[in-house]
Amino acid sequence: MSRIAYVNGRYVPLRKAAINVEDRAFQLGDGVYEVCEVRGGRLIDEARHMARLERSLKAIHIEPPMDRVAIGVILRELVHRNRVQNGIVYLQVSRGVAPRNHAFPLTPVKPGIVGTARSIDMTLGAKRADEGIAVITVPDNRWGRVDIKTVGLLPNVIAKQTARAAGAFEAWFVDRDGKVTEGASTNAWIVTGDGRLVTRQTDNGILPGITRSVLMDMLGAENLTAEERPFTVAEALRAKEAFISAASTIVLPVVSIDGKTIGSGSPGPVARRLRDAFHRHAEIAPAWSMHRTEGHLEVTEGSKNQG
Amino acid sequence: MSRIAYVNGRYVPLRKAAINVEDRAFQLGDGVYEVCEVRGGRLIDEARHMARLERSLKAIHIEPPMDRVAIGVILRELVHRNRVQNGIVYLQVSRGVAPRNHAFPLTPVKPGIVGTARSIDMTLGAKRADEGIAVITVPDNRWGRVDIKTVGLLPNVIAKQTARAAGAFEAWFVDRDGKVTEGASTNAWIVTGDGRLVTRQTDNGILPGITRSVLMDMLGAENLTAEERPFTVAEALRAKEAFISAASTIVLPVVSIDGKTIGSGSPGPVARRLRDAFHRHAEIAPAWSMHRTEGHLEVTEGSKNQG
Repeated sequence: MSRIAYVNGRYVPLRKAAINVEDRAFQLGDGVYEVCEVRGGRLIDEARHMARLERSLKAIHIEPPMDRVAIGVILRELVHRNRVQNGIVYLQVSRGVAPRNHAFPLTPVKPGIVGTARSIDMTLGAKRADEGIAVITVPDNRWGRVDIKTVGLLPNVIAKQTARAAGAFEAWFVDRDGKVTEGASTNAWIVTGDGRLVTRQTDNGILPGITRSVLMDMLGAENLTAEERPFTVAEALRAKEAFISAASTIVLPVVSIDGKTIGSGSPGPVARRLRDAFHRHAEIAPAWSMHRTEGHLEVTEGSKNQG
Repeated sequence: MSRIAYVNGRYVPLRKAAINVEDRAFQLGDGVYEVCEVRGGRLIDEARHMARLERSLKAIHIEPPMDRVAIGVILRELVHRNRVQNGIVYLQVSRGVAPRNHAFPLTPVKPGIVGTARSIDMTLGAKRADEGIAVITVPDNRWGRVDIKTVGLLPNVIAKQTARAAGAFEAWFVDRDGKVTEGASTNAWIVTGDGRLVTRQTDNGILPGITRSVLMDMLGAENLTAEERPFTVAEALRAKEAFISAASTIVLPVVSIDGKTIGSGSPGPVARRLRDAFHRHAEIAPAWSMHRTEGHLEVTEGSKNQG
């Protein structure tokens, strides 16, 4: 089945999904995005992703191109048209198309909106969770506002590629002070000897992960506590467990950092438990009933499914 | 006249010039670019721009999509088709189109090449040179490899917009040590009390400007000397002159920084002289004769014109 993308108001086959070369995301990195998990055909934590999207747009002074409900329609339509049961939906908003110039267009232009969706083979994630993943560390050389989810991801691209070349799944960025900030596309966590979770506080130095925030909120129910503070690579190497979190990977246990074994060298019980429990705590977005009338969609609220 | 762009092998009207939404420059900032001045219909410093493009590509491990001669054909064709006498030609190379994933595509894809050209009203630049420009300073919060000319320009976009909002033409980035690195899209220079030029050394903290390099090479002939070292905002405020350099602006004198007058408050003689002399030292690329045969172009070397 050919994949379908959304591009500025239209659903088109992905291979034909195109944006103008003067879209500012293409020439200037002037755009932001979200990646939302899809599970059983339903959006996971949609409201939190939409709130973060709005925060990112505000941070770089792009007016929201439409309201949450309208974006929700696009996300659902992408899931539906691509027949995604388990996977991700991707949404990107750029400042729009304008003659190339660093400063914002003098005459405001319409933001560009692009969305895609794809299925992900869940057995791959399950396998990684069973075996645990390897992480390497790289210097954090990114810009000062990585809390904004922009498409300027080249440092992350290089870090991820460096990890892959080293046979690892993820690269953890380490700042000038020797502290781990986060992974190239995931947040970083450790479990200390006395069983406390540690993950960096959400300042300008990390992306405020949605999966991270859900994990934070569910710790109490799981009888766990967390400290939000920086930790060093040395502390991570001494940790009982380590793991990563993101919408596309949920929780994956880390069994080695820079080739050195973490804890027992096998996935630890805390990471395993959090992974298993995650979808009981995450918000599963309302289902919808689609009434197609002349190409338009109406969204009706479905019951909340804790599925 | 509608503008013409080059997109992956074809010349198309700019409004129809489109790239796939999964081009990695659009989704991941995974691309590099060059902006080359056009003067009298001829490319300025083409060889240096091509060398820097190759350096940028190498730095992020993208294979050059074609050789310099072939790129030269594209640049000339863009200048010709857009009837640019004075202006700029823009060329961007991305890693190509692939399903979104931070790491490089497992199966190598063809790099994406996009080019545009446009005329620039030279009287605007002349007016700015006559009046001098205002500069503001902003914290340098960019990533650690701004010597690579990537499309990840959001920090520069924000800085330039901040400058415009303050009624200034350019923003100078200031690093943690209080030293000026460079402008949002230009290199930064000062002239000290004893007439020496100062501009930051080309390390990972600035883009190695082509116009900067030509200026460096012509200083001897102009009986000037330069120190390549960082300078503080305080030193800039005490300077006799200050100026910026870039392919699209050549040399523009700075008459105020953060609202404080530099030197006499009028464009200084050194900046003026360098601006006037620049095109006597820059390389003016060979003209070509175009023999269109079944849509192909042959490039023949013309005489070097120092005009």
